[in-house]
Amino acid sequence: MNDVLNARARASTLAAGMAKQPDYDARSWARTALSASTSKRALGAYARPLACVNAISLIWTILRETKTLKSSVTGVNTSFDSAYSLTFSAMGFLLVFRLSRAAVRWWDCRTAFGGITAGVRDFVDVFLIYASGNARREGVADDASAWACAFAAASKAFLRGQSDGAVREEFTGILSEEDVRAMNEATHPPLFALSMCRRCVKTAFYHSSSSSAPSHDPSSALADASVRGELNKQCEFLALQVGALERLRATKIPEIYVIHLRTFLMVYLTSMPFVFVNRWGWGTIPAVFAVSFALLGIEGAATECEIPFNADHVNHLKMDAYVMGCFANVAAILDWNAERERGERVG
Amino acid sequence: MNDVLNARARASTLAAGMAKQPDYDARSWARTALSASTSKRALGAYARPLACVNAISLIWTILRETKTLKSSVTGVNTSFDSAYSLTFSAMGFLLVFRLSRAAVRWWDCRTAFGGITAGVRDFVDVFLIYASGNARREGVADDASAWACAFAAASKAFLRGQSDGAVREEFTGILSEEDVRAMNEATHPPLFALSMCRRCVKTAFYHSSSSSAPSHDPSSALADASVRGELNKQCEFLALQVGALERLRATKIPEIYVIHLRTFLMVYLTSMPFVFVNRWGWGTIPAVFAVSFALLGIEGAATECEIPFNADHVNHLKMDAYVMGCFANVAAILDWNAERERGERVG
Amino acid sequence: MNDVLNARARASTLAAGMAKQPDYDARSWARTALSASTSKRALGAYARPLACVNAISLIWTILRETKTLKSSVTGVNTSFDSAYSLTFSAMGFLLVFRLSRAAVRWWDCRTAFGGITAGVRDFVDVFLIYASGNARREGVADDASAWACAFAAASKAFLRGQSDGAVREEFTGILSEEDVRAMNEATHPPLFALSMCRRCVKTAFYHSSSSSAPSHDPSSALADASVRGELNKQCEFLALQVGALERLRATKIPEIYVIHLRTFLMVYLTSMPFVFVNRWGWGTIPAVFAVSFALLGIEGAATECEIPFNADHVNHLKMDAYVMGCFANVAAILDWNAERERGERVG
Amino acid sequence: MNDVLNARARASTLAAGMAKQPDYDARSWARTALSASTSKRALGAYARPLACVNAISLIWTILRETKTLKSSVTGVNTSFDSAYSLTFSAMGFLLVFRLSRAAVRWWDCRTAFGGITAGVRDFVDVFLIYASGNARREGVADDASAWACAFAAASKAFLRGQSDGAVREEFTGILSEEDVRAMNEATHPPLFALSMCRRCVKTAFYHSSSSSAPSHDPSSALADASVRGELNKQCEFLALQVGALERLRATKIPEIYVIHLRTFLMVYLTSMPFVFVNRWGWGTIPAVFAVSFALLGIEGAATECEIPFNADHVNHLKMDAYVMGCFANVAAILDWNAERERGERVG
Amino acid sequence: MNDVLNARARASTLAAGMAKQPDYDARSWARTALSASTSKRALGAYARPLACVNAISLIWTILRETKTLKSSVTGVNTSFDSAYSLTFSAMGFLLVFRLSRAAVRWWDCRTAFGGITAGVRDFVDVFLIYASGNARREGVADDASAWACAFAAASKAFLRGQSDGAVREEFTGILSEEDVRAMNEATHPPLFALSMCRRCVKTAFYHSSSSSAPSHDPSSALADASVRGELNKQCEFLALQVGALERLRATKIPEIYVIHLRTFLMVYLTSMPFVFVNRWGWGTIPAVFAVSFALLGIEGAATECEIPFNADHVNHLKMDAYVMGCFANVAAILDWNAERERGERVG
Repeated sequence: MNDVLNARARASTLAAGMAKQPDYDARSWARTALSASTSKRALGAYARPLACVNAISLIWTILRETKTLKSSVTGVNTSFDSAYSLTFSAMGFLLVFRLSRAAVRWWDCRTAFGGITAGVRDFVDVFLIYASGNARREGVADDASAWACAFAAASKAFLRGQSDGAVREEFTGILSEEDVRAMNEATHPPLFALSMCRRCVKTAFYHSSSSSAPSHDPSSALADASVRGELNKQCEFLALQVGALERLRATKIPEIYVIHLRTFLMVYLTSMPFVFVNRWGWGTIPAVFAVSFALLGIEGAATECEIPFNADHVNHLKMDAYVMGCFANVAAILDWNAERERGERVG
Repeated sequence: MNDVLNARARASTLAAGMAKQPDYDARSWARTALSASTSKRALGAYARPLACVNAISLIWTILRETKTLKSSVTGVNTSFDSAYSLTFSAMGFLLVFRLSRAAVRWWDCRTAFGGITAGVRDFVDVFLIYASGNARREGVADDASAWACAFAAASKAFLRGQSDGAVREEFTGILSEEDVRAMNEATHPPLFALSMCRRCVKTAFYHSSSSSAPSHDPSSALADASVRGELNKQCEFLALQVGALERLRATKIPEIYVIHLRTFLMVYLTSMPFVFVNRWGWGTIPAVFAVSFALLGIEGAATECEIPFNADHVNHLKMDAYVMGCFANVAAILDWNAERERGERVG
Repeated sequence: MNDVLNARARASTLAAGMAKQPDYDARSWARTALSASTSKRALGAYARPLACVNAISLIWTILRETKTLKSSVTGVNTSFDSAYSLTFSAMGFLLVFRLSRAAVRWWDCRTAFGGITAGVRDFVDVFLIYASGNARREGVADDASAWACAFAAASKAFLRGQSDGAVREEFTGILSEEDVRAMNEATHPPLFALSMCRRCVKTAFYHSSSSSAPSHDPSSALADASVRGELNKQCEFLALQVGALERLRATKIPEIYVIHLRTFLMVYLTSMPFVFVNRWGWGTIPAVFAVSFALLGIEGAATECEIPFNADHVNHLKMDAYVMGCFANVAAILDWNAERERGERVG
Repeated sequence: MNDVLNARARASTLAAGMAKQPDYDARSWARTALSASTSKRALGAYARPLACVNAISLIWTILRETKTLKSSVTGVNTSFDSAYSLTFSAMGFLLVFRLSRAAVRWWDCRTAFGGITAGVRDFVDVFLIYASGNARREGVADDASAWACAFAAASKAFLRGQSDGAVREEFTGILSEEDVRAMNEATHPPLFALSMCRRCVKTAFYHSSSSSAPSHDPSSALADASVRGELNKQCEFLALQVGALERLRATKIPEIYVIHLRTFLMVYLTSMPFVFVNRWGWGTIPAVFAVSFALLGIEGAATECEIPFNADHVNHLKMDAYVMGCFANVAAILDWNAERERGERVG
Repeated sequence: MNDVLNARARASTLAAGMAKQPDYDARSWARTALSASTSKRALGAYARPLACVNAISLIWTILRETKTLKSSVTGVNTSFDSAYSLTFSAMGFLLVFRLSRAAVRWWDCRTAFGGITAGVRDFVDVFLIYASGNARREGVADDASAWACAFAAASKAFLRGQSDGAVREEFTGILSEEDVRAMNEATHPPLFALSMCRRCVKTAFYHSSSSSAPSHDPSSALADASVRGELNKQCEFLALQVGALERLRATKIPEIYVIHLRTFLMVYLTSMPFVFVNRWGWGTIPAVFAVSFALLGIEGAATECEIPFNADHVNHLKMDAYVMGCFANVAAILDWNAERERGERVG
């Protein structure tokens, strides 16, 4: 796994994915408040209702201010604004409630994927430490490290719904073509890789009753049973993380919440020009634009962040970067293992 | 379990359930904001108070605007709107508080059922891996897998309160008719299935002191005790999930919260036409409709999502789909087990 | 425990408790919004301040509107309503904050008691499974099941602060009169029952070094140590639940929060008629009533739900029902254990 | 430990501490809303800014209303109140946000200390049960119980920052003078007591490889290893609780939050009389007092509850009472242990 | 490690770091509300937008009030303030939502680092207790303590992104120059130190099957396996904490949230003078300043606290102090270990 060429091949594949999801500088107001990037603003998520509301506002204001419509038609009562205030705070709460649910979900996703990368490196570290000094086990440890890395990369591909499975280049020097194919053909590639990890744990540390080798003394059997349990618990942890991510990917907020909020919002915004045109005149057009952009933008941000597994959305999880970090850590662990055997201090 | 015909029979039964709870497209505003589906909007939950409030509004506005009532009767003071603003924000908080409690509950339900499906597949994976290579245990592993799947399906039926227990077709190729009957007749079918899983764990991995077979060497006994503990911990995890779901199903928000909020809301809405008719005239009818629809709809959404275990509510948990996914994963695990014994990389 | 007469005796005792805390139908608006039950509304918690505020409002409005007071006295400035709006939203937040703390506490109580019932049945299930097939252990398992059930019932009585301990009828067929007396006389009955459960675990599964019986082979000792650990962990879980419940019962929200909120609320409400009477006239009386009922009712709901362990409060935990469900599950587990020994599928 | 005189000596010491932190009756409005206790209201935390704001308000209103100042100086524009409304809701959110953070912290503190008392009694219960029947271990169990109780009392003293360590009287009959001195001189007394508990666990249940006693048979070694692990896990739990409490004591909310909120609040309140005096006249004085008392009181409550470890603050953790309860439970456990050895039901 | 000179050298290095992050006195209003420290207020985070908004406000007000601009140009309609109120509460929620997310993150960081310091001392305590009485193990325990302390200090340096690794002086008397260099050159120094800790655990407590020493009897092997598992679990805990901290450092709130909120805020603030100048006149300048300072300051506080790992930010984690406390605790544990071997009470 630590071959330089292979590492470079993997890195360049992942770097291509990372380039689509750059980090941002939260301290720069110029690059945030004035950002003109429609992808960063996820404008696609609310462009249509925004256009719709403002078209109505534009047409109605023009008709009204140019006196095209007779005043008998346009005499909408302006005293309705108290009804607006009455309902607005409820709508504001709802919007921010939706946004905060999305933010919590987003962070849950991040936490679970972070659990995957941290879990993989711990699994590899413990496996290597207890395998070292025993040739048979060291071979199994190699397999286990490979499958653990494959688990992280397969989770990424699975969550993104890549129909043809994980990209092969990411596994250069880790799994053979054949293994990648087997994994990608499985119904659930991450579960497949995890099952392989568990099999490695069994192969290395399980003293089965049917084993013909009578050489195991009880003392080492005890020690091994305890290590086996520890490693399997780490597999369990990884399984829980991927389960949480699947759940988050498959489950949106209940439909009724979204429908009701959006209907509410659209009625609110489209009725605005009719109620306020008498008071605001031509100013209706920018005012309605500002209010609708502000409110629809909040809804849009929530929609954008609800299921953040897309490879080319700037606001989604930067899974390529996380997997790359995970690979780098595993590579370092493999290096250290060769160097320091017993944890003694030197010098 | 992996017989094609049986799998198809199970799938078609579950697919019928899934069809009643389709997923939705959160990115489409047209299909959400403009949705006319009364079931998606759970209109049933608040149709009556909505009708009641608007009937009063309609009658009063007509009486007033057509001068049917003498003005001495109708002279309700319009200066009360400051009282409205004073109480409204408290009511808005309360409404959104209730909604957010319901959302948290809903997600807790989803998490617990997700725990069931993820726990079942992990239980099966570990059981199979450690049973393989030992004919007696492999038989027990078959039983354990079947009961674990049965646990998931029985939980679904139990939570839905299906009086005649789980549907038999869902168990085709998993449990015999007789077993399904025994399980459905139990006071608590999921607990029954789980108890069977625990018995399988005991049968496979427990070296009882009374066992006459002296062939077990201590090393393998050690290894088995550790596996047994691990599997039983997974059963424990499943038990906690079903316990959490039962608790959520049996417990509503305290009655006083609901009563007080609804009384508050009804007083607020029904008094609205009397206070505002002087200012809004005929506009009172649409304004009261809009406000009451917005606010009652929030309450309705909370009521709808509080106990989300109904098979034909669109907004409730799509448990048929989750169970189907669980079965598919277990089937895949059974397949892999035959193929890869030791976790070695090939190719 | 599964004797029919005993079960009936227990059930009727618990059913009497359940009758005081009926469930409610959240979908019916008529029975919630229009409920006239003072106990459901916990009117007792805020009847006095409500009466006080409205008496002041009534007297002042009458004095003012009947011109009993000269206008020089009554000339309170009406422009203060902006001060009202300025402080109201802070008060509204505070009220709903208090309510939501109470709701979280209430649900924490529910979760902990749910943990008790679920923990008891799991403890019994595991104990029985691993005791079966060994006559001595089966006897201990009977004791353990009895003490576990007693733990649940004793927790209920302890949390309710029943000075004479748990009701004896609830233990018919579970514990002898003498055991119930011993438990009730203990400083902490649930802890006593739990300690008995732990002793049963030790008696059944602990191979003490002082035991003279040399017949135990190491293999079964291993298996038993692992089962013992598992059962003791379940006792630990039960101990944590009862600890959490004690803590919730003994700890209110910090006094300063309650004092400050209530002072704030009373100043706000009692000053209302003085400020608004000029504008609202006779309408002051219903308006102040509506506002004070709405706000004091929120505070009252929080007070009512803060420590929900009372046997005759409708809004409190329905612990009789939970204990009954727990007993039913344990009874079923005892039945199954006789029938299915190995978890095999039949038919 | 269960000697009557010793128990009485301990109890009277703790009762003196408890008297400083009485409980309150949340159902009585008279004793809460009308409370005149400055310590309950923690008036000290905000007396200065309150005095400052109201002095300004008083002076300005007098100057203005007695026409001491010429009108050209006093002509502050009253139209600024819209700026007030614009910023107020943000300030209200901030205030309640700060209050709710403090409430969550307070409850975290309570939970952690509750974990200590519950953890101590569980540790003692398990230790005694598994030590009984073995004379050497029973001696160690006595030491372990004493150190566990000492841990609870030392945590209390440590969190309160008592410079001379825990009060000796609290340990009457538990630890010798010499042990108390050794503990109090340690850098971290609770950690010292915990370390002693762990040493007791080792002494009682650890079969070290260097022990010369060959009498241990493997079966009992197994059982003991499992008990040792369980007891050490409980020590770990206690360590986590005290770690959490130290963290809460040492960490305030980030300074910027407090500074910004307070500056905001002071600007808001001190500018109030200048803006509103034209409209409110002499009423400015009570109005500014009411608003400033309400808002500063919320901030004061948050400050008061942020680090609730003071022995003489009414609103802080009643740690004397918790420790007393813990001692009572441990004493009861010691009693039971003598009576019931096997958990069997009697009668 | 407990050499006086070394301890002093370490302490003075850490004290230098601590001096940059002094604690504050939350009870003093004078030093908080009136604080003029730009670093405490993190003015750098929002100085630019603040200057920009107020420059516009200043210029526009001067132009308008000195009649430089003709009135036809300046006739912006003042009736827009209702649009302000309509959107303001949504903006206020958003701001406080962002602030509260940052506060939660900040506290998560604090909790995780607190987990590191508490975990290190527990790891050392348990390791020393079970190593004592066995010369070989006592040597390993020294190494393990050193690496555990190194882990804490390396985490600090790693989280601060110190490009040249941890400062050597902090390790005086703990690690040799050579070890510090090896650690600092590793890709991930904390993981390196943790891996060393795990190796020490293995060296001390693992009975490998390949070990030629047949002297281990099964009883002690059992006991050691259980201790090994316990110590490795504590390493696992430390690994999770550092994983959580890395995740928090590498992940900001989704970009869309920040961009949308800031755009919203800037449009709101910059349009303010145009809308309100007619009403407020020269008062526009202080009013806009006050509102913009209040709102931008909230955003600035959130930005400041989002990733709190900087060594010279007053509001960031005081990691030097935490590491110092951790070292002091470890030093005390080393002292106690020499004194009290068995946990017995003396005197």
